[in-house]
Amino acid sequence: MRTDGRQTAELRPVSITLHPNKHAEGSVLIAFGDTQVLCTATVEERVPPFMKGQGKGWINAEYSMLPRATQVRNQRESAKGKLTGRTMEIQRLIGRALRSVVDLQALGERTITLDCDVLQADGGTRTTSITGAFVALALAVHKLDRGNTFAKYPITDFLASVSVGVIGERTLLDLNYDEDSKAKVDMNVVMTGARKFVEVQGTGEEAPFSRDEFNELLASAEAGIASLIEKQREVLGELGSRIGTASV
Amino acid sequence: MRTDGRQTAELRPVSITLHPNKHAEGSVLIAFGDTQVLCTATVEERVPPFMKGQGKGWINAEYSMLPRATQVRNQRESAKGKLTGRTMEIQRLIGRALRSVVDLQALGERTITLDCDVLQADGGTRTTSITGAFVALALAVHKLDRGNTFAKYPITDFLASVSVGVIGERTLLDLNYDEDSKAKVDMNVVMTGARKFVEVQGTGEEAPFSRDEFNELLASAEAGIASLIEKQREVLGELGSRIGTASV
Amino acid sequence: MRTDGRQTAELRPVSITLHPNKHAEGSVLIAFGDTQVLCTATVEERVPPFMKGQGKGWINAEYSMLPRATQVRNQRESAKGKLTGRTMEIQRLIGRALRSVVDLQALGERTITLDCDVLQADGGTRTTSITGAFVALALAVHKLDRGNTFAKYPITDFLASVSVGVIGERTLLDLNYDEDSKAKVDMNVVMTGARKFVEVQGTGEEAPFSRDEFNELLASAEAGIASLIEKQREVLGELGSRIGTASV
Amino acid sequence: MRTDGRQTAELRPVSITLHPNKHAEGSVLIAFGDTQVLCTATVEERVPPFMKGQGKGWINAEYSMLPRATQVRNQRESAKGKLTGRTMEIQRLIGRALRSVVDLQALGERTITLDCDVLQADGGTRTTSITGAFVALALAVHKLDRGNTFAKYPITDFLASVSVGVIGERTLLDLNYDEDSKAKVDMNVVMTGARKFVEVQGTGEEAPFSRDEFNELLASAEAGIASLIEKQREVLGELGSRIGTASV
Amino acid sequence: MRTDGRQTAELRPVSITLHPNKHAEGSVLIAFGDTQVLCTATVEERVPPFMKGQGKGWINAEYSMLPRATQVRNQRESAKGKLTGRTMEIQRLIGRALRSVVDLQALGERTITLDCDVLQADGGTRTTSITGAFVALALAVHKLDRGNTFAKYPITDFLASVSVGVIGERTLLDLNYDEDSKAKVDMNVVMTGARKFVEVQGTGEEAPFSRDEFNELLASAEAGIASLIEKQREVLGELGSRIGTASV
Amino acid sequence: MRTDGRQTAELRPVSITLHPNKHAEGSVLIAFGDTQVLCTATVEERVPPFMKGQGKGWINAEYSMLPRATQVRNQRESAKGKLTGRTMEIQRLIGRALRSVVDLQALGERTITLDCDVLQADGGTRTTSITGAFVALALAVHKLDRGNTFAKYPITDFLASVSVGVIGERTLLDLNYDEDSKAKVDMNVVMTGARKFVEVQGTGEEAPFSRDEFNELLASAEAGIASLIEKQREVLGELGSRIGTASV
Repeated sequence: MRTDGRQTAELRPVSITLHPNKHAEGSVLIAFGDTQVLCTATVEERVPPFMKGQGKGWINAEYSMLPRATQVRNQRESAKGKLTGRTMEIQRLIGRALRSVVDLQALGERTITLDCDVLQADGGTRTTSITGAFVALALAVHKLDRGNTFAKYPITDFLASVSVGVIGERTLLDLNYDEDSKAKVDMNVVMTGARKFVEVQGTGEEAPFSRDEFNELLASAEAGIASLIEKQREVLGELGSRIGTASV
Repeated sequence: MRTDGRQTAELRPVSITLHPNKHAEGSVLIAFGDTQVLCTATVEERVPPFMKGQGKGWINAEYSMLPRATQVRNQRESAKGKLTGRTMEIQRLIGRALRSVVDLQALGERTITLDCDVLQADGGTRTTSITGAFVALALAVHKLDRGNTFAKYPITDFLASVSVGVIGERTLLDLNYDEDSKAKVDMNVVMTGARKFVEVQGTGEEAPFSRDEFNELLASAEAGIASLIEKQREVLGELGSRIGTASV
Repeated sequence: MRTDGRQTAELRPVSITLHPNKHAEGSVLIAFGDTQVLCTATVEERVPPFMKGQGKGWINAEYSMLPRATQVRNQRESAKGKLTGRTMEIQRLIGRALRSVVDLQALGERTITLDCDVLQADGGTRTTSITGAFVALALAVHKLDRGNTFAKYPITDFLASVSVGVIGERTLLDLNYDEDSKAKVDMNVVMTGARKFVEVQGTGEEAPFSRDEFNELLASAEAGIASLIEKQREVLGELGSRIGTASV
Repeated sequence: MRTDGRQTAELRPVSITLHPNKHAEGSVLIAFGDTQVLCTATVEERVPPFMKGQGKGWINAEYSMLPRATQVRNQRESAKGKLTGRTMEIQRLIGRALRSVVDLQALGERTITLDCDVLQADGGTRTTSITGAFVALALAVHKLDRGNTFAKYPITDFLASVSVGVIGERTLLDLNYDEDSKAKVDMNVVMTGARKFVEVQGTGEEAPFSRDEFNELLASAEAGIASLIEKQREVLGELGSRIGTASV
Repeated sequence: MRTDGRQTAELRPVSITLHPNKHAEGSVLIAFGDTQVLCTATVEERVPPFMKGQGKGWINAEYSMLPRATQVRNQRESAKGKLTGRTMEIQRLIGRALRSVVDLQALGERTITLDCDVLQADGGTRTTSITGAFVALALAVHKLDRGNTFAKYPITDFLASVSVGVIGERTLLDLNYDEDSKAKVDMNVVMTGARKFVEVQGTGEEAPFSRDEFNELLASAEAGIASLIEKQREVLGELGSRIGTASV
Repeated sequence: MRTDGRQTAELRPVSITLHPNKHAEGSVLIAFGDTQVLCTATVEERVPPFMKGQGKGWINAEYSMLPRATQVRNQRESAKGKLTGRTMEIQRLIGRALRSVVDLQALGERTITLDCDVLQADGGTRTTSITGAFVALALAVHKLDRGNTFAKYPITDFLASVSVGVIGERTLLDLNYDEDSKAKVDMNVVMTGARKFVEVQGTGEEAPFSRDEFNELLASAEAGIASLIEKQREVLGELGSRIGTASV
């Protein structure tokens, strides 16, 4: 049994609250246990310079932690005057992951920006962000769709993410902060509703890992992500009914 | 009657939720209507370089808006690489206001940092931040005090803030965003429980104002702040019982 | 009597020298006692992006202190790579104050930038800057006007600024550096020729102040500003004769 | 057959030149085909602040591309004033990978910085960098070791890296730039001499991938890395003889 | 005859006003025609990190132009967030030039910073700055010396600077802005009272120059600098009497 | 005899390798002894904003040292977030020098950027850079010319650069790092094939120098540059045959 009483293959309690923000085109407050992230989706009717004139849209993501989201207060990146490498890495990951389930052609010349702001952190902030940002994106696309914007629905599948790791000899699902800091292998996995991999990032800084350990980690992540996508479907209900309906 | 149905001298509904954050020494989620600010207080057992060796403490504040706190998304200051003048002005104001009711000598050589992060904005974010940050500060000081830290209680009085403005001929209390953008005179007032002024910042960029208008604005602010402090007392209950007990 | 021999309600000697700079459209060297500020006005036939296409002009201000304007040398903000919060706050204040007496519609699509560079500082640099910048602005507008540029004269009134403060029990006008650092209440006031308030910024960081103290401070500031505007009228002479002639 | 005539599972010609730089404690010029990286290792007898007093060392990496390493010239990051997210991500990866085969305790309180500067780029700059940086690190550690510095040899195993990807239906090893830009799945793998995984970063931005594809990619990478490590052993000869001799 | 009526080998009118600033240890307002520079010398009883513990002092210089010193307003470097290459080049030159006539050993462990702020520019701002900064430095050293600080006087000689250039076929001394922008060869020369060269920076971007032209330029500069040093001696009078008295 | 066995007027061994980079329009690897610089020329069919619409081209240069080009590792300027004054000064010098032998009108509306990256430093990096960048520029212009681009050939003469200095009583040519750090006078000279001066930058920070010393330095530099240009002619062969053929 884990320090918080979970089984090795058990997710933390997940909650997804829709529409916490009155201004955004889509917004979600998501929690994986004590990790809480506010995800907002902003739709703008223009694309970044490098995408202009291609008739395609763009999905962009930004990630930040409030200074006291963590046990020890962190200096704000705005006060430092620059983003840390960690932040850049995470926001690039979130954007890339979401684009994998969006048909940018079908989206048309508009940009959707997903802001993931971590209100409280207890491990897994990037996987929580991806899972919540997908729902915020779905809400924003649904809202656009009510105006009959899309011939072809631009979201091609569901998408969620979870972390897995090895502590001692055990493979654990959805690590909290405590577990994360003790894990010798740490992996973040992003998968689609069709159980395909979008991102796999495994790191054995403390101890390299074998092919067998790798397989176990992937299996655990796959099961966890299936549960998370179930939860997303449930929460979105009708609002998610056109996701994946276009044959790509 | 105002667009949201309020009387000229009526505050928006105020809610103050204690302890939304499990890591911070003090934390508050405060709302003035649709303006929502998360305030956390962080205690550190050291002071900034310019305060060293004086046996005194320091109170510091930082302020930020989430990018989609507003109707139109704002670029993050961390991405721009610098703070805007508006942010600097506001966080200097919050810090200065809070220090006016703290006996830095009694606090001892420690720093309390108040982070005010605006989750959703609808006018009055700086006054909401000051009012909420005071409560977060009180919680952090109370927590320190449980260890019998203070001979003399370092918080000398309650403190709250509200905006007032002139639209047309009417003096309005606690402007929302819509009213704020139409006001020809705009004033932010910070006062103590003893009804003394700590900060008065009045601006008549659109139209200079007379002494009589000024007096009306101050009277309206004074009444509003009295209500806000009533609310703070109520929410803090026992936790605020030592505030102002030391004779300064 | 004050340390420099002044009465409580007495200004420091004020001098305003016109045209110290041969390049600028308007320029003024102003001194309040030992505080010396060089103010230049630059006219450009374009407006900032956010003002484009509105047929209106813009007034902008920048403020800076030479590194050895002060007793102890300050690091240059250009070397630090960023403006301090204090500088931003002051230059926003100067711009806002000047715009309150300019009819931007009448000015037409042009920008006037007021640069206030403090050559020597002895308290009251922001009030000296506003008072001097107004005169530099008037010179620049007069110069434009000689070409019959304006149907309606864009400057609607005179404008000056002074500081007031409380030391011990006394209300003092136009604080020098020494007094400023001892004051428990510190207020900057900007008023027009019609004796209306444009900005009131009062701070009681050291000790909150009562309504009565507030009233005394405002009365003292009002008298001081009246004298300063008298001085501005005198120095400008004919050059200021169209100021406020348009009915707004 | 591939555009450059290689088989699907064939590496590009690899060359590793030792000691191209006369100042560095270790240096290597490595080429994977037309991708050329200069790797230098700098030894400093101190550790970063966060490592102080732990009796352990640190391995740090920095990565950069010369502006005309690429087909189209890139602006220098020094001129932009900041590192791109891509650069940060890569240098974090290189550092993390190398640390996985270094016993920081055995290294003692010193820092080895690996600078990887891409002189010419044709795909796979990060995998080429890791493979070359390992050799530069080995040279620097060997040089330290000649002074009988280490009781226990701090490098615990060999380490190399290669990219794999899917184009059409084919799994290709060691993608050049052309192939990289067409790949729908792109994966970078870092492995040790003991055939354990240190980093696996797979991305299916263009098209999510199945478990079977994943397995094929890993198998191809594993074979490629085995060849690269063979090459490293050969080039280092005697200089690498103590690598992995300490039982960890 | 030149556009301003001067002979080819004639300096512009030079004026040097001592003590324009009440805070600085030395200060000078210097004008070469319409070029006006405020030079202040600040003495600090410490040296930069790279000079610590050597028992020697340091001379540092900073240079800046007010935004409207020029015909067209320049953006402030503090607003841009960085110094231009031109500014860095000039302030490095000023510091290097002054250090050539200071015995850093005799100065002792203190830093003198020369701030050269151009109030109005009409060509030759760097040569005016060097010539003025030398006088400000002399005042500061004299002030230190009144406390019998120096066994050996640390200033070893006088120092001044002037520009020369070629327009058409003529060699002109002390170019104003207009001449400077037309010159095909442009040279700045710094010399000592003993007529030795400290810096020679000649540029023929528009047209390379021959050895003969070079000789003529140097001869003209030498004569001009001799006059400038005469002027410095005159202005300093008794205050400069110990300059160069120590045998180096 | 010098520490490396050279005569006072002897250059270090010079090598110039053409085309080390497959992407650049022109590229050269140049060595003056142990100083190695990679120079690439990039042609872009546009000019910087300040040159637009004049029908002329532009030559731009950038300079950088790899962090371990030197004995002690230097922090990257990209990591610091800004260029040092030294870098800016050098790259301004390289650009200015090259422009002196280019007819910008004949070049047409295009920009050639010369990147000089120091792979290994042993004194004279700026003179090596200029000498190598000229050859890279010649290659790029020759490549453009093969398309019959130019009516008039835009390179008007050869160009090279060398350092000279005084150590003790001796005038030395082409200083290495060791000599450079001991020299009391240090001079960099840039000359054309027609033996005209383009830049002369002499510094006597340690000890001012006389006119005679100056003449000796120039004579030594002139001879050294003549040899370097001989070498450039030899290496370029046919590729340089049109240089200077247009009468300017």
